[in-house]
Amino acid sequence: MSPTMSQSSLPVFEIGLNALSGVLDKAEAFAAAKKLDSSVLVSWRLAPDMFALARQIQIATDQAKNGSARLAGIEPPRFEDTETTIEQLKARLEKTVAFLKTLDRNQIDASADREIIFPLGPHKKGRMKGDDYLNHFVLPNYHFHLTIAYAILRHCGVEIGKLDFLGAIPITID
Amino acid sequence: MSPTMSQSSLPVFEIGLNALSGVLDKAEAFAAAKKLDSSVLVSWRLAPDMFALARQIQIATDQAKNGSARLAGIEPPRFEDTETTIEQLKARLEKTVAFLKTLDRNQIDASADREIIFPLGPHKKGRMKGDDYLNHFVLPNYHFHLTIAYAILRHCGVEIGKLDFLGAIPITID
Repeated sequence: MSPTMSQSSLPVFEIGLNALSGVLDKAEAFAAAKKLDSSVLVSWRLAPDMFALARQIQIATDQAKNGSARLAGIEPPRFEDTETTIEQLKARLEKTVAFLKTLDRNQIDASADREIIFPLGPHKKGRMKGDDYLNHFVLPNYHFHLTIAYAILRHCGVEIGKLDFLGAIPITID
Repeated sequence: MSPTMSQSSLPVFEIGLNALSGVLDKAEAFAAAKKLDSSVLVSWRLAPDMFALARQIQIATDQAKNGSARLAGIEPPRFEDTETTIEQLKARLEKTVAFLKTLDRNQIDASADREIIFPLGPHKKGRMKGDDYLNHFVLPNYHFHLTIAYAILRHCGVEIGKLDFLGAIPITID
């Protein structure tokens, strides 16, 4: 049996966002140990024309929230982008995971062949088939911003590894 | 209908690896315009204890190649990790895409409930159900290394954007 649309989305988001919360705990501990203000990390960028850590996490959560909501056929709730501290970013991750749990899995499972219409920047709209939207837009974008958030912290010296990124995945290690 | 295991893997890899090849073209043009040796980019890292660009691309291609091969029930071919130029990295991307086209889609489609056993570093093995292996290990790792490769080049000043990362995805933009 092929995995359902909800199986290929909701647990991926939940595990990854919870993993990022753990990564942020290590960032907070790193800042405390170095006696630096953790807001420096929150506003760090990999390049002057890339978004800072806070925005990367806002977009990662929005991809999970908006992508899942659209597949479930509902209008995504808007989260204001006001986070400026690690604690607030952790709260946003938690709020996103809580929202994902409210979605109707059957609606998401029935979305593979439905056309999804979604905003692309302020003026344009994208249209994709549900399964393409998940596989070729939501998941790549979600993983992109999750990875950049991780990379910003790793670049700053926070000691994190691949297992911190992957999180509590269903694996048996022998 | 849920997307099949092969639909959720092979086109994602093919589109993303081809997109990365286009990103490498822009990196080569950037190096030429700046009159710098493009091998500087190939060996650039985001942190001293992170892999350089070449290794990031080797791992991204290995995740696509090895993940798909294991889901198809065959032993993945080994690609030697000898690339030191952008041209060689582009050849590796092309070789990987060509390999993906040789795989039996029906075998991959039948792999969701099969246990996949795979090496984790030099001494350990991981075991996961096929669909979990794809959703929670192969795709996150693949996207991770693809994103880091992109981020290294963006960090160096190569002018690339999100559409360069996503590549030729099946989207209609209005």
